[in-house]
Amino acid sequence: MVNVLLVPYSGGIHAKDEPKLLGCTENELGLRKWLESQGHKLTTTDQKDGSKFESLLEDAEIVITTPFHPAYLTRERLLKAKNLKLCVTAGVGSDHVNLDTANELKIGVLEVTGSNVTSVAEHAVMTMLVLVRNFVPAHDQVREGKWDVAAVAKDEYDIEGKVIATVGGGRIGTRILERVKPFNPKELLYFDYQSLSADREKEIGCRRVEKLEDMLGQADIVTINTPFYDSTKGMFNKELISKMKRGAWLINTARGSICVKEDIAAALKSGQLRGYGGDVWFPQPAPANHPWRTMTNKYGAGNAMVPHMSGTSLDAQG
Amino acid sequence: MVNVLLVPYSGGIHAKDEPKLLGCTENELGLRKWLESQGHKLTTTDQKDGSKFESLLEDAEIVITTPFHPAYLTRERLLKAKNLKLCVTAGVGSDHVNLDTANELKIGVLEVTGSNVTSVAEHAVMTMLVLVRNFVPAHDQVREGKWDVAAVAKDEYDIEGKVIATVGGGRIGTRILERVKPFNPKELLYFDYQSLSADREKEIGCRRVEKLEDMLGQADIVTINTPFYDSTKGMFNKELISKMKRGAWLINTARGSICVKEDIAAALKSGQLRGYGGDVWFPQPAPANHPWRTMTNKYGAGNAMVPHMSGTSLDAQG
Repeated sequence: MVNVLLVPYSGGIHAKDEPKLLGCTENELGLRKWLESQGHKLTTTDQKDGSKFESLLEDAEIVITTPFHPAYLTRERLLKAKNLKLCVTAGVGSDHVNLDTANELKIGVLEVTGSNVTSVAEHAVMTMLVLVRNFVPAHDQVREGKWDVAAVAKDEYDIEGKVIATVGGGRIGTRILERVKPFNPKELLYFDYQSLSADREKEIGCRRVEKLEDMLGQADIVTINTPFYDSTKGMFNKELISKMKRGAWLINTARGSICVKEDIAAALKSGQLRGYGGDVWFPQPAPANHPWRTMTNKYGAGNAMVPHMSGTSLDAQG
Repeated sequence: MVNVLLVPYSGGIHAKDEPKLLGCTENELGLRKWLESQGHKLTTTDQKDGSKFESLLEDAEIVITTPFHPAYLTRERLLKAKNLKLCVTAGVGSDHVNLDTANELKIGVLEVTGSNVTSVAEHAVMTMLVLVRNFVPAHDQVREGKWDVAAVAKDEYDIEGKVIATVGGGRIGTRILERVKPFNPKELLYFDYQSLSADREKEIGCRRVEKLEDMLGQADIVTINTPFYDSTKGMFNKELISKMKRGAWLINTARGSICVKEDIAAALKSGQLRGYGGDVWFPQPAPANHPWRTMTNKYGAGNAMVPHMSGTSLDAQG
């Protein structure tokens, strides 16, 4: 018998509304029946902090959590989890696990690589369009009974003719470039330590830029699609943002901590960034006072943040 | 000397914020200097109703207005406009002019065909993504200090794998299909009286459906890209909407009156439509009590309406 601890988000009434919502406490990724038929024990909770969680963790041999509502498996917690053999991410990205400690303790870390790359790529393209076309304040006008086209048109652009760049040319970054190509961007750029093959570059119609700063200086729209490593933590800080083209849009659907939150908010306020959007935060859930909830540009716009949801669409769960 | 009457939206403080906002009363489409140098007279107003406008119209030889804030040139008004020779639309679509009467009175009607097809196509794709990926309630959570992934994920889908259909296979309809193709839809369909060439169909990867009802019965996402004619007025009524696949999304960036507003709101409420969005209304500006401002699906979502702005981005004005 294996003791499995599952920590997804709570579905509440929404789990009843939509039984296909698998990744929640109620539907348990569809695992209970199978696990129990195999003689294993499944404990499920959305409480990922406090003494109850810590005591469950001490009993667990396998812990499964999601990037949308991650149980943070810090060094302290891993050291106390004497029975733990495996940390599974139901999704992509295991940065909520202290990987060095897991390695030291010989605890395995698995994720469902590639499971939701399409959903994330779609979300990034949506965010690009929402920011560049100034959707949010326009929809607000509708709900507030207003009609002031000039107020939104003054900050409304097309993505056609723009230079679009991805930091990271992996599965998600290249999918984003492929999806924006028929919008006739001026150029598609990517920065990665590894080159794509010449054939793949030709197929996508993109060009690699050797130095990140050089790419950022040319791009109107930048999308972040790099894993979260020590080397990418806090990468987009004041210094790097200052190398971007003034008034660019920045989209981050990778991990919140790749950007320094206060520096992003300040750049939006100053006009260095025209907009920022995505679905990743640190920590998650984002506290009510997280600056990305309320930050805007000088027009009170330019914010397209949502909770971490881009990999948990019903189609991505299916 | 020609007497020109220009009726765009007012820019207010926004015209000062952004001098590239050409299509407003302050910047007058950049026409004043040139018109006056040629000895003509330009009168500009955003007041498109009331006795002042009607008296200006009686003096005008040319009237220029925009789809975003249209001066409605009804039969009554055209009959009184004794000097009028030409109605110009600074944009696409002249349905604000009574074309039969204009024809009878030998008043010319011109528009800037093709001027903003890209901007409209981008807007339609954005609206599709915003609806299917359930952006609006998710962004609301951010602003309201909330974090409830299940509440938005239960109604969040990918456009990958969906059947996407356009009513109208003209310049905008085909541009939309081209832009969604790399998202790997299950199928791209179009309905039009005229077929595209076999080569063009192959290039886009789309298939014509002979009967509108047949197409609507297969499509998960429907986008309306047909001109406003007598034959398309009120086309999407209760009867036609009932032929759509249950729970489909409908996007309309063509003209508001192609859809019956009460029938759209009722279909959203009943679940026949999962979402509706776009930027066209009748009349414009939309009154504060227009049902499309507040209509939602059973989850309080599924509305992606904005004021008429998709053809007036700064790039489309340039």
